[in-house]
Amino acid sequence: MRDTVDINCDLGEAFGRWRVGDTSDAALMPLISSANIATGFHAGDPNLMDETVRLAVDHGVGIGAHPGYDDLQGFGRRKINGTSRELVNDIVYQVGALKEFLRRHGATLQHVKPHGALYMEMAANPELAQSFVHYMRVASPNACILCMAGSATEIAAREAGQPVAREFYADRDYDESGSIVFTRDAGRPDPAAIARKVLRACLEGRVTAVTGKDIDIPFETICFHSDTLGAFDIARHMREALSAEGIRISPLSEILK
Amino acid sequence: MRDTVDINCDLGEAFGRWRVGDTSDAALMPLISSANIATGFHAGDPNLMDETVRLAVDHGVGIGAHPGYDDLQGFGRRKINGTSRELVNDIVYQVGALKEFLRRHGATLQHVKPHGALYMEMAANPELAQSFVHYMRVASPNACILCMAGSATEIAAREAGQPVAREFYADRDYDESGSIVFTRDAGRPDPAAIARKVLRACLEGRVTAVTGKDIDIPFETICFHSDTLGAFDIARHMREALSAEGIRISPLSEILK
Amino acid sequence: MRDTVDINCDLGEAFGRWRVGDTSDAALMPLISSANIATGFHAGDPNLMDETVRLAVDHGVGIGAHPGYDDLQGFGRRKINGTSRELVNDIVYQVGALKEFLRRHGATLQHVKPHGALYMEMAANPELAQSFVHYMRVASPNACILCMAGSATEIAAREAGQPVAREFYADRDYDESGSIVFTRDAGRPDPAAIARKVLRACLEGRVTAVTGKDIDIPFETICFHSDTLGAFDIARHMREALSAEGIRISPLSEILK
Amino acid sequence: MRDTVDINCDLGEAFGRWRVGDTSDAALMPLISSANIATGFHAGDPNLMDETVRLAVDHGVGIGAHPGYDDLQGFGRRKINGTSRELVNDIVYQVGALKEFLRRHGATLQHVKPHGALYMEMAANPELAQSFVHYMRVASPNACILCMAGSATEIAAREAGQPVAREFYADRDYDESGSIVFTRDAGRPDPAAIARKVLRACLEGRVTAVTGKDIDIPFETICFHSDTLGAFDIARHMREALSAEGIRISPLSEILK
Repeated sequence: MRDTVDINCDLGEAFGRWRVGDTSDAALMPLISSANIATGFHAGDPNLMDETVRLAVDHGVGIGAHPGYDDLQGFGRRKINGTSRELVNDIVYQVGALKEFLRRHGATLQHVKPHGALYMEMAANPELAQSFVHYMRVASPNACILCMAGSATEIAAREAGQPVAREFYADRDYDESGSIVFTRDAGRPDPAAIARKVLRACLEGRVTAVTGKDIDIPFETICFHSDTLGAFDIARHMREALSAEGIRISPLSEILK
Repeated sequence: MRDTVDINCDLGEAFGRWRVGDTSDAALMPLISSANIATGFHAGDPNLMDETVRLAVDHGVGIGAHPGYDDLQGFGRRKINGTSRELVNDIVYQVGALKEFLRRHGATLQHVKPHGALYMEMAANPELAQSFVHYMRVASPNACILCMAGSATEIAAREAGQPVAREFYADRDYDESGSIVFTRDAGRPDPAAIARKVLRACLEGRVTAVTGKDIDIPFETICFHSDTLGAFDIARHMREALSAEGIRISPLSEILK
Repeated sequence: MRDTVDINCDLGEAFGRWRVGDTSDAALMPLISSANIATGFHAGDPNLMDETVRLAVDHGVGIGAHPGYDDLQGFGRRKINGTSRELVNDIVYQVGALKEFLRRHGATLQHVKPHGALYMEMAANPELAQSFVHYMRVASPNACILCMAGSATEIAAREAGQPVAREFYADRDYDESGSIVFTRDAGRPDPAAIARKVLRACLEGRVTAVTGKDIDIPFETICFHSDTLGAFDIARHMREALSAEGIRISPLSEILK
Repeated sequence: MRDTVDINCDLGEAFGRWRVGDTSDAALMPLISSANIATGFHAGDPNLMDETVRLAVDHGVGIGAHPGYDDLQGFGRRKINGTSRELVNDIVYQVGALKEFLRRHGATLQHVKPHGALYMEMAANPELAQSFVHYMRVASPNACILCMAGSATEIAAREAGQPVAREFYADRDYDESGSIVFTRDAGRPDPAAIARKVLRACLEGRVTAVTGKDIDIPFETICFHSDTLGAFDIARHMREALSAEGIRISPLSEILK
């Protein structure tokens, strides 16, 4: 049984004057240990990146880059058929942009987590995963890659010796293979049910798939989404449930030490 | 009389499959000592940034970031009324993106030169210039800022102790105040005349303004544009004229040591 | 004293999954008589344009194009220094895009209203206003132009014989010249106060400027903004106040007949 | 044997100051009978659309809209995973924008031809093809759809009674099924060989596939690309070869009468 876990959340996913979801980043930041900050291609803009980095630094939250497909309108959830070279160059560009805001605020990059359709594409595409990991080895050898357990991303990172952390998806359903079941409109989920699911995953390493079957789920970090309706309540319930069992919430950089 | 000078040129100013001007970056790279690489807002894209950085590293050319207004269609030559905070955040984003490609290729940032209308705006806007320099002090204290002699940019950099280099514009005309005379369609200039103008500026520190009057021009680096028609011949003539007088061409990082 | 007035409102100003303000277009549509639909440059996207046109048709609301500067991040509120030719071509492009959605839904274009900084620029720039009106004469001779009373836009439209309607700004303050006083963060205004101001303007043709002085305000349509906080209450209060005095709310196309 | 054929070409595929290929639109326009004008998503911008429409009108060339994926960097050659609803709304937007420039210049829309990856996707996706044709029936019932023989696009258009024209690809190779063989870097093809291939297709209705086998090719219009190297020579050779055999070159609007 683990005594520490990381909670990561996608933040900075607004754009200009526009917002999504019903929860502000300022409300969520005290409840999480790691933030995946959008880097301008699927969401985010330079002003918001600056503010979100400052907010994360103020709360001692570990900071990761959250690069996505170049598709603001589709929120990075539509696959674009680029080559591995094109997609990794897009990632290099976005990660570099975020690093400069980190430098400005005296922080360092804790992790990188591709967003949405790019995360799913990398999980299934070994050539892309290896090309991405190769870039990380050269330019960010100490930053951790967040990924799905068993994905091409995890395999490529382990082969190359790059730090890697597997995610447990608090506000997504699983199929029996341990993959996310994609549902575009999830409605407003029950925070208490999510907290129970997360607690069980931390204590037993297991989750119930949509088919009703229990499966093993290895992970180092718990992911939930700031644009899920009721994100604030979800985060609060999870924290309380974990604390009640004596499980500490700490950034990946401390857990993976 | 100087025995060394830098020649800087804007490179990587294509986009996707599109090109501008009649000269390739590969042809120009051996003829210059510093490259201002477009960072994706007015020109350039992640694939091209990667290629151009590699090319510059291969030729021992000093590399600078060339951030512009977020205006691909207008090539960064149309002013956008942003606040200093917005414009500096746009610059942070772009400089950071380029730095990551540099890291990937084992190079470091030599300088930053704002592009087009942003360069002109900063020259005239002390608040923007100070805000930009403040960011540079924090995140790139050793990188040199390229600017117009006497501009708000130069003043802000000197006050803050940031390295700075003034430009001589080989393929632009001057008014009596030492400012650039803006001409949208310059046609194809005479390379030999440009070489004579540059050589005289290096030997005497003087140039003839459009009014016919001679003015003093202090500078550390010579600028010409890769999208000027005949850019290759201009570069070749300049180099030959300087070499014939024993003036060496070296990156700013060596000259400012 | 007038017995009929138009109420126009900017709608379709979301983008992709993002929203702004606290009021949905579906809630506002029954309360207004004319909709200015964002055309993709400062806000809006093709999917949203299609939905908003359908919604307006269902409610018998007069439909106008609401073209803006090509600046999603700045919501079209930052001026971009284009030539009149460039800016009018941008407008042609956007108006044409909206017209095609109208054609699809069996509707016709009632009016055009430039957005934000473009509206203000045209009000002050006779060359731009004339160039815009010239295009309207050729391609949409029956569509009405919405503008500020006394603006270059109004003057150009009247000279050319293009239908024109002047706006009364319900949720903006006036200076003594009858111009809008720009305030970026207006907070949540008082709906009852706005309703009183609007009613007085309809009955007396006068409004109190920020200086306290009363000025004459000629207008044919009342404008309020869907992203003003409490937009729904503002619209409801205005309608009630106008109805109580027997003033009917009708689309411009009926008023200008 | 046919006595008349249409030659269509993609024009207006520059962006801002950037160009692609080695041939100007002004040089090609006198040699073709139909122009597919880029509508801003994969190439083209409002200024260029205006100029290209004017040029086409001056030469009596039939004008079509050439909508593509929203991917300037990838030139519309990378598939984006949108729904049919999203993709058709993108097409509506682009076609509408072009129609407004046509209205301005007193011209009417002759045809619509999706570009690049969107053309290929529609050819293989009956739901998308039907959704697109449905929009055309409503908003442009007289405009012709350009497509590949046997594609889902052709089938959907014929079922709905929308005018349709099949293309012969002068500067692309065929496989035995009559599909285009995709080659990213085609180099500079031989204009005389292309002219012979086109002439034979017009006279015999046959072409030799890359395997060496002859196949039947039904078509009403010949397509070549302005960004193919040597496009001007290709167009000139084709015209001469067709004229020598007494085949007239006319816009689709005249051929399909």
